Order: sequence, then structure tokens, then C-alpha cells
Amino acid sequence: MTKVIAINAGSSSLKWKLFETPAETVVAEGMVDRVGLKDSVFTAKYGPDEKERFKATLNIKDQTAAVDMLLKKLTDLKIVTDIAEITGVGHRVVAGGEIFKESTVINDEVIQQIDDLAEYAPLHNPAELQGIKAFCKLLPNALSVAVFDTSFHQTMPAVNYLYSIPYEYYEKYGARKYGAHGTSHRYVATRAAEILGKPLNKLKLITLHLGAGASITAIDGGKSIDTSMGFTPLAGVTMATRSGDIDASLVAYLMQKLHLSDPEDMIDILNNKSGIFGISGVSPDMRDLEKTRDTNPRSQLGIDIFVNRIQKYIGSYVAEMGGIDALIFTAGIGENDVIMRKRIIDGLSYFGAKIDDERNNVHGVEKIISTDDSKLKVLLVPTDEELMIVRDVERLRREQ
Amino acid sequence: MTKVIAINAGSSSLKWKLFETPAETVVAEGMVDRVGLKDSVFTAKYGPDEKERFKATLNIKDQTAAVDMLLKKLTDLKIVTDIAEITGVGHRVVAGGEIFKESTVINDEVIQQIDDLAEYAPLHNPAELQGIKAFCKLLPNALSVAVFDTSFHQTMPAVNYLYSIPYEYYEKYGARKYGAHGTSHRYVATRAAEILGKPLNKLKLITLHLGAGASITAIDGGKSIDTSMGFTPLAGVTMATRSGDIDASLVAYLMQKLHLSDPEDMIDILNNKSGIFGISGVSPDMRDLEKTRDTNPRSQLGIDIFVNRIQKYIGSYVAEMGGIDALIFTAGIGENDVIMRKRIIDGLSYFGAKIDDERNNVHGVEKIISTDDSKLKVLLVPTDEELMIVRDVERLRREQ
Repeated sequence: MTKVIAINAGSSSLKWKLFETPAETVVAEGMVDRVGLKDSVFTAKYGPDEKERFKATLNIKDQTAAVDMLLKKLTDLKIVTDIAEITGVGHRVVAGGEIFKESTVINDEVIQQIDDLAEYAPLHNPAELQGIKAFCKLLPNALSVAVFDTSFHQTMPAVNYLYSIPYEYYEKYGARKYGAHGTSHRYVATRAAEILGKPLNKLKLITLHLGAGASITAIDGGKSIDTSMGFTPLAGVTMATRSGDIDASLVAYLMQKLHLSDPEDMIDILNNKSGIFGISGVSPDMRDLEKTRDTNPRSQLGIDIFVNRIQKYIGSYVAEMGGIDALIFTAGIGENDVIMRKRIIDGLSYFGAKIDDERNNVHGVEKIISTDDSKLKVLLVPTDEELMIVRDVERLRREQ
Repeated sequence: MTKVIAINAGSSSLKWKLFETPAETVVAEGMVDRVGLKDSVFTAKYGPDEKERFKATLNIKDQTAAVDMLLKKLTDLKIVTDIAEITGVGHRVVAGGEIFKESTVINDEVIQQIDDLAEYAPLHNPAELQGIKAFCKLLPNALSVAVFDTSFHQTMPAVNYLYSIPYEYYEKYGARKYGAHGTSHRYVATRAAEILGKPLNKLKLITLHLGAGASITAIDGGKSIDTSMGFTPLAGVTMATRSGDIDASLVAYLMQKLHLSDPEDMIDILNNKSGIFGISGVSPDMRDLEKTRDTNPRSQLGIDIFVNRIQKYIGSYVAEMGGIDALIFTAGIGENDVIMRKRIIDGLSYFGAKIDDERNNVHGVEKIISTDDSKLKVLLVPTDEELMIVRDVERLRREQ
């Protein structure tokens, strides 16, 4: 049995999850938090049923040091006997542009290309590259694979990925829709087909990845044909702190009102102070809106707007695909918010969706939650991006 | 018989249409073009069946001079014997904000309020005010009424008019969805109910105002509950030169790429260089895209994107209303582009819409163009904003 590790390096964190393959069992997982800041925190869950816990506070100056620390701890904690047991490393990469249409074995050229794409994800790609380089150095014999958040959406037709702006902005500056959460949408669509017992390439699905970030994807025959996030993850439905779709002219109007001179400051507000947090004035966490909705009308409004935007995207994708077979909920809210799933589905009876309240009364398990006579199947499928990453590593290993 | 004139004053033009009431027959119509520029042009159609033509080139320095000229010409050309025959003037006003929830008799307070709303429509409201003031002065005994492009949409619920941005931007700066083309959507919805022989308050309709500017409205029981244009007419579907919805972060990204320092310059590009013109690189006129689509793939792309965005908005409004009774086409493209109507409807068979090719093969006439067995009725209703304006004047006269 060999081991494969899935890595998600952020601007100040490194998340990791170690799998045994081909069994696909989780051996250990954890996080290095506050990378590059004071008092970095290293945490790990490991051992039988991942019941063991380890936590240490120390200074970790960058992603390279974080990877170094991680590999040391894996042997220190006897999670592995030798780091050479790790034969594959899968790295989540946020922006793959138009270059990376699927997960890719990392080499010097790929590293250069990820670097070139940094302007599409200035906070993410550089941090991810540090992680990639550190692993390549410390585990030179492991297969390194980049799994892009955007690549699943590279099957979108031009009619959906192009904006109605001067075409040269697409050609010269790559201004188009890339989408995000691709690994999650791909994973839950694949699982949904298995649960439904139908071939993925015969199904029309809408996947709802509803977490702090939220995106909706239209999947026809296993291929993403449209998705709600855009050039960046700002667009689409209302999110925890992101505005989703707005009239672009508000950027100029509000900059003037707020006396901002840098448009990035306005985009920052739209990314970090908006969404249900901006509407409610209470919290970016949907659970807090639920708790306060009886006393704070703006919390109820935040909930209602969240539901409304999701229902409208579903309607638009039903139109686009000429009907669908199933709707799939996933991610934090999608997996755990029973009442939110009910609200969303209750408004879709025209499309033949009927929720079964008893079946729906669950958290984070794979399940059909529509009634037997619901024309449109509704599923709950907990996402597992790390498993998808590990599977991509193993698939590419076989293809090598 | 008295006469009522409908006025549409733009930044450099004054369009007018004179009706006899209560017969609602058109007596004359015309335009003063290039107001405030060199060689202004005054044109009029008048006489029996409006067969007479008048055209003069002269200098008209502002809207006040344009109104003065117009009233003189009406007697000169013997369109009226005495301008006192004109007992009502209806003015189209672009921005009515949240103040004007319906058409309103103009007085000093209303004039002040329209002035206060100028920041929502800096090119339009000031020009319209000039026209209003000139008519009030020259026709002091006529009833002056302001008919707002936005007021029909004031029935939208908060869940649809609010953006997912900090709530204080709505409270302090009026940053919300106002919509546009309200008079047109209201007119065609009213006519559609009459044609269908059903009470408007029992119908769920989607009205498609498709011209150089294009907007789509969800009308439930005669009330606008959602519309595709937003804080400004930039948002929504792809238009002749307007982008419609984009990822707002593109504003900052493209400003940097294009070395623009003023966000208004970027919004200007999104308003005037984008849409099917930006995609095709050929023309903002759909007819030119049709002519070139065989040789220029980007013309076909412009057509396809236009159709796609409209279908998606329709889907989202079907979801929002839980099904609809009828779809109504109006405005330049909606009234005259036979093949475009067919393209849009052919993609909506899931919703039970079926076009009758023979019935559809018409330009600008009131007609049901769906087949007898189409679950969803599809209508063509030529818009008549001027008639709606005149009806509002007469209604408010009766209510006084």
C-alpha cells in the first residue's frame, strides 16, 4: 500500500490529507495555520479512526518551512515510517486559466505556467507554487500533480464563457468566465450518477456547492457547460461575504460615494464585506442569520436573497439544458442546512422537485432527499475534493 | 376633442408625438435633433395619415428653445389652430428613484425631486427637466405629467431590488435595482392581457423589451416583481453596445490592463463599446450580425450569446414565478426580428413554448405567435410608450 497526500496551500495556511491507496482510506489530516505569521499552529488528526490529536504552536516562516515541518511530523508521529511511502502529491491550484483543461503532472514547464497565471489569482497561485516547489524538492520521487479549480469548467462553450465585452479583452487579457470549485462539482456529479445508478454521460445535473463561497454548475453528460462564478469567484449567487452578481456600474458609483480612488478597494468590499454579511449586518455565517431572523428583519432578508439567487440560477440552467434530471447539494450549507435545502426546493415545484422532509433531515450523508414521486431527483452528496485530487494522482500515474 | 403631447427629451434631442383624446389618434409626431449642437434638425410628420413631411435645419441652443420652436411650428404647420388646444403634456423621465412609484402631476416640488434624482441619470434627468420647465412656462394651463421609466418596477420586493452589498449603501446612496423601460413593459403587459382575454391580475407574464437597450421583466398579477436592468440600464442581458451582467471584478482588472484611472471610463466602455458590438466587432445592429454571420464567426457568437442570456433570464423568472402564462416580445428586435424570436422560443420547449412559424412571420403587429397547443402563449405586442404616457395624463386628469 502506498500513500498519496492532497495539499491545499493558501496565502497563510497549508491543509493536508493523507490517503492510503488504492484503498482510498484517510490515514491522517491536518493543517498548518498562520504560515508566515507569528505563532503558526500545526495540527494533525491521525491514528486508528483518526482519534489521535497533535497540536503545536511555533514559527513557520513560509510554505517551504511548512512542508518541511509537515514531512518531519509525519515520521515523528509515526504516521509514516518513511516519507518515501508517499508516492504521490496532489496540489489544489486555484487558477488554471485556459491552459489547464485537466489535472496535470507537474514539471518545470507547468510550474512556469502556474506562475504566469498568478494574475488571475494573486493571493492563491504564488502560495500554491511555494508548496509545489517544496514538495518537489523534499519528495523528488513522488508523482506531483496539479488539480485546478477551474479545469472542470474548461468544457464550457464560448457562448457561456465569453462576456459581452470587446472581444479583444478576451484575446489579449484572458477576460472570460473561468468558474471555480471545479473539483467539488466534478466529484459530486460523479457520485450522484453512481447513487442514481445511471451513466453520468446520460444525465443533466445542476450541482449546488453552497458554502462560504457558493457556486452553481450546469453539467450536461458529465461536462460543465455553465457555472455561476465568473472571471473570479466574486460573481454568481449571494455568498457569505461576496456580493455575487451586481450592476457593474455600481463599482464606479460607490467608489465616488465612498471616496475610493483604487477600484481594487471597491472589489475588496464586494468580496469581503458583502453577501449575507453585508445584507444582514450580523454575520457571514448562515447559522447566525437563522438564529437572528426573528428579531432582525435584515437576517431574514439575507436568507431570502440567498434562496432567491440560487433558485434563479437553477431556473436559468434548467432553461439552458432544456430540463434536468437531478439537483445535488454539497459543501457547508448544502450538506448541513436542512431548512435551507427545503426552502430552495420548495420554490422549485414548477420543475417537479419535491423534497421528502424526513429524508432531508440529515447532515452530511450521501442520500436522495426528494420524494419517490419527485420528477426531479434531489440529492445530498458531501463533497470530497481531497479524494478527487488523490484519484487524479492515481489516474495520472496509471496513464504515465 | 383636446390634444395631449408626449415628450421624450434626451441630452441632445426632443422627441414628440401629439394625440387627439379621447380618440387616442396620432395627429403628428417628430423630433428636434442635435439640440445644443450646430445645425439642429427639426422634423415633423403630420396631416391626414401623417403623410405630410416638414424638415428644417437651424440652430436650437437648448431644450427651452426646442420647445419654443416646436410649439411655433405646430401652429405654423396648422397642426393645431392654437397651442391652447394642447391640454396635457406627458414627459418621459428616466430616473424616478424610490420617490415616484407612479406617474405624477408635475409641480414645483416634483421638479425639485426630479432634479435631486439627477445623479441616477446624469445624462437624462437634467435634459428632461429643461423640457418640463419650458412646457410649464409656454403651456401654463396644460396638465403636465411626469411618466417615469422606473416607476412600474417600484412594486419589486426587497429580495429582488436589493443587491448583496452592505445594506447601508442602499440606505445612504440608493444603491439598489431600479430597472428601466417600465412604461413599455407596463403597456405590452396590459395589451397582452386584453389580447388573451384574461384579467391582467390573474396572469404571470414575462415581457421581453428587445431593442438597442433590452430588458426582461417578470410580471405577476400586473405588477413588476423582477427586471433584468439594475441600478442602471447597464445590467441584465446582452444589448447592442451594453455588456449586461459581468463579473464586477472585471472593472478593476480591465482598468489596470487598459491603463484607465477613472472607473467611469470603464463603465463607459461597458455601456458603449460592448454588447453584440463588442463581441462581433461588426456592428451594434442585430441586422448587420445576421448579414455577416456566415462569414464572421464572431457575428454568430454575438447572436448566440444574445439568445442565451435572454433564455437564461426567462428560465430564472419562470423559477421565480413558479411557471408563467405568456411571453411577450416587443421593441425593435422583439417586434421585427422573426428569426430571433424563433431562436429564443425554440430553446424554451421545456417550458411548453412552441412557436408557429407562419404566425411568427410578421413584423410589428399584435398577435399570438405560438401554436394553438403551446402550453405557454407567446405574443408579439408592438410597444407604444407615447400612448401609455398620454393615457397616464388623461387618467390623472380624471383623478384630479
